Amino acid sequence: MELKIEIIGFGTVGIGFLEIVNKKIDILKEKFGFIPKIVAISDKIKGTLFDEGGIDLSRLLEIINNGGSLKDYGSGFYDFEKKGALDVIKESNADIMVEMTYTNIETGEPATTHIKTALERGKHIVTSNKGPIALFYKELKQIADKKNLFMGIEGTVLSGTPVFNLIEDTLPPNSINSIKGILNGTTNFILTKMENENMSYEDALKMAQDLGYAEADPTADVEGFDALAKVLILSNVIMGGDLKKDNVERVGITQIKPEDIKEAAEEGYRYKLIGSVEKTSDGKILASVKPMKLPLSDPLSGVSGAMNALTFTTDLLGSVTIQGPGAGKIETGFSIMIDIIRIFKKIRSK
Amino acid sequence: MELKIEIIGFGTVGIGFLEIVNKKIDILKEKFGFIPKIVAISDKIKGTLFDEGGIDLSRLLEIINNGGSLKDYGSGFYDFEKKGALDVIKESNADIMVEMTYTNIETGEPATTHIKTALERGKHIVTSNKGPIALFYKELKQIADKKNLFMGIEGTVLSGTPVFNLIEDTLPPNSINSIKGILNGTTNFILTKMENENMSYEDALKMAQDLGYAEADPTADVEGFDALAKVLILSNVIMGGDLKKDNVERVGITQIKPEDIKEAAEEGYRYKLIGSVEKTSDGKILASVKPMKLPLSDPLSGVSGAMNALTFTTDLLGSVTIQGPGAGKIETGFSIMIDIIRIFKKIRSK
Repeated sequence: MELKIEIIGFGTVGIGFLEIVNKKIDILKEKFGFIPKIVAISDKIKGTLFDEGGIDLSRLLEIINNGGSLKDYGSGFYDFEKKGALDVIKESNADIMVEMTYTNIETGEPATTHIKTALERGKHIVTSNKGPIALFYKELKQIADKKNLFMGIEGTVLSGTPVFNLIEDTLPPNSINSIKGILNGTTNFILTKMENENMSYEDALKMAQDLGYAEADPTADVEGFDALAKVLILSNVIMGGDLKKDNVERVGITQIKPEDIKEAAEEGYRYKLIGSVEKTSDGKILASVKPMKLPLSDPLSGVSGAMNALTFTTDLLGSVTIQGPGAGKIETGFSIMIDIIRIFKKIRSK
Repeated sequence: MELKIEIIGFGTVGIGFLEIVNKKIDILKEKFGFIPKIVAISDKIKGTLFDEGGIDLSRLLEIINNGGSLKDYGSGFYDFEKKGALDVIKESNADIMVEMTYTNIETGEPATTHIKTALERGKHIVTSNKGPIALFYKELKQIADKKNLFMGIEGTVLSGTPVFNLIEDTLPPNSINSIKGILNGTTNFILTKMENENMSYEDALKMAQDLGYAEADPTADVEGFDALAKVLILSNVIMGGDLKKDNVERVGITQIKPEDIKEAAEEGYRYKLIGSVEKTSDGKILASVKPMKLPLSDPLSGVSGAMNALTFTTDLLGSVTIQGPGAGKIETGFSIMIDIIRIFKKIRSK
């Protein structure tokens, strides 16, 4: 069976995803019984490639590896003004729309409109974009449910490291009572450097920027906005909350001093930027992002460098912690692939 | 839909499983669409309860909580000599046979015969028994595949903490290149006590015995035999190996001295009993159980007390570590439940 896929937003992760499709096509065919066919790629800057017969991935990846872009593919290329993302979503015959435009945590756009339009056209969606899920999950899920469509969002938290799929497939019928995690690799890298190498916050940040972990303007990471978006997603998707940004306490790491870290270490503790969600006894959802001193026996205290991790506290299994990459071209590309595999399984079993 | 279940071997975990069924019956019905019905329980010491109309769990659990046993249930009770495990497996109308007799890592019996008999009668199987899977996985899987039956083995490694289900549902199409883990809670408890509280091996072992973590004869744990069985399962089930016990290097923790641990700590390392499986470049599977000095940055080095953990090294996602309980009445009982849910999903999607 063929599964027709359109890609909206084509940055590093999009290329990573195509590389995975190209590398694993035989396994997908033999083990899972489907062939992914990319019928469109649309990116505001790079333009639109539209070929319902299926884009030749080997050729496109070779072009990209040689420094080229969508335009150099030739036939099927359109300027974005001629055929934009919404045109593609409305016109193409794709079964699945993959949304990978940049996250906008203020408006959720243009991703939210892309997702709504795709759902209205009867397309399943897969996304690594935090904006629409952090801001409008309930609304989007309602549309999807009504139309019997699936939304894959594994890549929105901890990149391809299993979170939502872990909970859906491996933990029922556990109740999840709380979630606590290291959700941002940049800040965890900075804190690790400050503790292990006695660096100042400024030096550790500079190093993170030099290594490409942190942006020139690091606000989204160091002030906890990126972790906040993920906490909102965990609250609303897993814990059944309906929180907005202002319902979540948010403190970044900029006020932590090497002395604080040293003092904590002497007491047997370690500072981590912790995103936390818990259900109170009266059913309320409380969420926060803030630096916390963890005892060294806490599994999260051992998470070093740019790694991410989440601890789920459950009623049957106690605490389960998953640790893995929180970002990366192939790592996030994989999150798209696993969600497509799962959508295929669900379609087939209907 | 009703799912008829028979339980062979009824110790602590069996009771834990029944408690979960009883507690979660509404969720199973509403969320997953099936009702588990226990039609038989057979235990060499406790006897056999056989009621194809379905055993009344609330009543049985109340009897057990008040110190009673299967016999006190009344109607449907047979002495094991009159109606034993094999009789039940042959006679009952169960869809699923749950094998929870004690692990025998030398012969795999009587569990292997139970499983074969159940498969031959067209029953799916779920087990937390390491013996048959460590020793005869290939053979049993072949029978199951031929008859289109499922084998749930989540509980054989890390109790209900997701391992096999994690790999099957959340990691494809990753290749797993190696697995490394803390597979035995008793030895990890002893090593943690030796490091954190400067205990001798003997004192830490005594404490583990007093707390019920270690048996009076601790050989299976401290000499690495329990971890070895789990390494065999990981090798043969996940990595496609066909290893026997003698193919696996095995060293226990009895030779580790407090000085070794102290010296390692000073160098920034920590001793852990590590089970390891890796695929070499020429496709061979190498496996071992032995104490290893891990750097503190290794996620496994932060696993303390009786917790277990596994790190999978994959081609797309890099390293992913799952940490959770490795034993326990409800924790292992849950492993049976999640496998039954998964079998139900598979039956339904056929």
